[in-house]
Amino acid sequence: MAGNSRDAGRSVTARALSVLTAFDVDHTRLTLTAIARRSGIPLATAHRLVGELEAWGAVQRDADGRYAIGLRLWELGQLAPVSTGLRSAALPVMQELCEATRENVHLAVRDGWESVVLEKLVSPRSAPEGLRPGGRLPLHTTGVGKVLLAHAPGAVLHEYCEQGLSRHTAYTITEPGRLGRELQVVRSRGFAQTSEEMTLGNCSVAVPLRDADGAVVAALGLVARSVRADPSKLVKPLLPAADAVRRRLAEQDREQPGAG
Amino acid sequence: MAGNSRDAGRSVTARALSVLTAFDVDHTRLTLTAIARRSGIPLATAHRLVGELEAWGAVQRDADGRYAIGLRLWELGQLAPVSTGLRSAALPVMQELCEATRENVHLAVRDGWESVVLEKLVSPRSAPEGLRPGGRLPLHTTGVGKVLLAHAPGAVLHEYCEQGLSRHTAYTITEPGRLGRELQVVRSRGFAQTSEEMTLGNCSVAVPLRDADGAVVAALGLVARSVRADPSKLVKPLLPAADAVRRRLAEQDREQPGAG
Repeated sequence: MAGNSRDAGRSVTARALSVLTAFDVDHTRLTLTAIARRSGIPLATAHRLVGELEAWGAVQRDADGRYAIGLRLWELGQLAPVSTGLRSAALPVMQELCEATRENVHLAVRDGWESVVLEKLVSPRSAPEGLRPGGRLPLHTTGVGKVLLAHAPGAVLHEYCEQGLSRHTAYTITEPGRLGRELQVVRSRGFAQTSEEMTLGNCSVAVPLRDADGAVVAALGLVARSVRADPSKLVKPLLPAADAVRRRLAEQDREQPGAG
Repeated sequence: MAGNSRDAGRSVTARALSVLTAFDVDHTRLTLTAIARRSGIPLATAHRLVGELEAWGAVQRDADGRYAIGLRLWELGQLAPVSTGLRSAALPVMQELCEATRENVHLAVRDGWESVVLEKLVSPRSAPEGLRPGGRLPLHTTGVGKVLLAHAPGAVLHEYCEQGLSRHTAYTITEPGRLGRELQVVRSRGFAQTSEEMTLGNCSVAVPLRDADGAVVAALGLVARSVRADPSKLVKPLLPAADAVRRRLAEQDREQPGAG
């Protein structure tokens, strides 16, 4: 059985964690059988591990017997530096941006070859999109992704392009040379933009967020409807917003010397 | 040693999880030694478990060698129903509230005898407070706490009072009879309020959030400076906001029949 062969040689910790990886954005509530199948663990083992995880609060059971990620794991996640640091520093600035522009505001970091949305504020009249915090997107198709790729080590772009640039619309940049030239422009002019490269009808503008040392640690972007948006207008409030986040990150550094 | 005796009889999963509980709001970055001490696990065992957790992404290591909760655990936490459901439904409504009132907006649920802050939006000119998502507060001292206690099963109030009502300011309600009478008022008039009962200079107003079935699942509150705030004014935008969250929760139920 695939389950048993995948299970062989894994430590108990790895197996307990693999129970948790059965959950993803498309699978937030799972039966025990589905957990065992998706994590490649025999049902009896899954039953015991899920019981231990439930007792601790890592998973919780619905009224209908399905499992979901528990409140205690959510609480632990809130302690991650991306949440206590970046998101916490950026949120009030994102609120102001959302209020001033009436467009959707994205905060994202790069993890390997994807951008991870740390926070998203939506404006009712702006572009419709279903993405949630924790959601992942390619790097070459969005404003925040282009910023993150433009400021990644050179080897990352090379490896990213070698995997092939996935096409999402007729306007997606799928030619590595063209992407490389565009990322040079992103670095020189200080912001990225996209036009219907991920979703038809939507455009985006994004700027890098730097920490106190000047290193690019995240990207801040606006997503708008193409028919209404003027990228040159959208970028104007983004640049001072990025500065404001940088100042708030520097304040955090001063306030929290990080007692361990 | 306390560590070894606490460790005896615990399953490997429980020990791996106890490594994670070494982290809390006051300890977000820890050395390996601190993790071992705080989780009551021998250093060699902690070293192995932390290595497994790091390989998986549950923890990550700083440049200075200290550990923090990792991005992957944060992502998993985002899949919890409090995040995909309640927080997701409430956030746009909280943004509007924050914009309209210019006060701090809190979303909280009850976990046992504490309220857990799911989300908090701050307004620059409103009351200063250091609380973050994932932070916990007593139930008898805040607006959201009183709402959650007022709508908890009767036994919860009884047990909560038996533990003794902690005093935080001269205005904290510490007499069970008085708290019980106040919670009756909370239920009958549909909102709770506090005046300097948790923090001198701050006041709060909160209303229950109900799911499609009418069950109280969370509380939505505003925290303001006492000198400036008029509770009767603060409660006005809260009541339609609670209705808006309920409608959004009902929409979520229709959109996501919850494939498992």
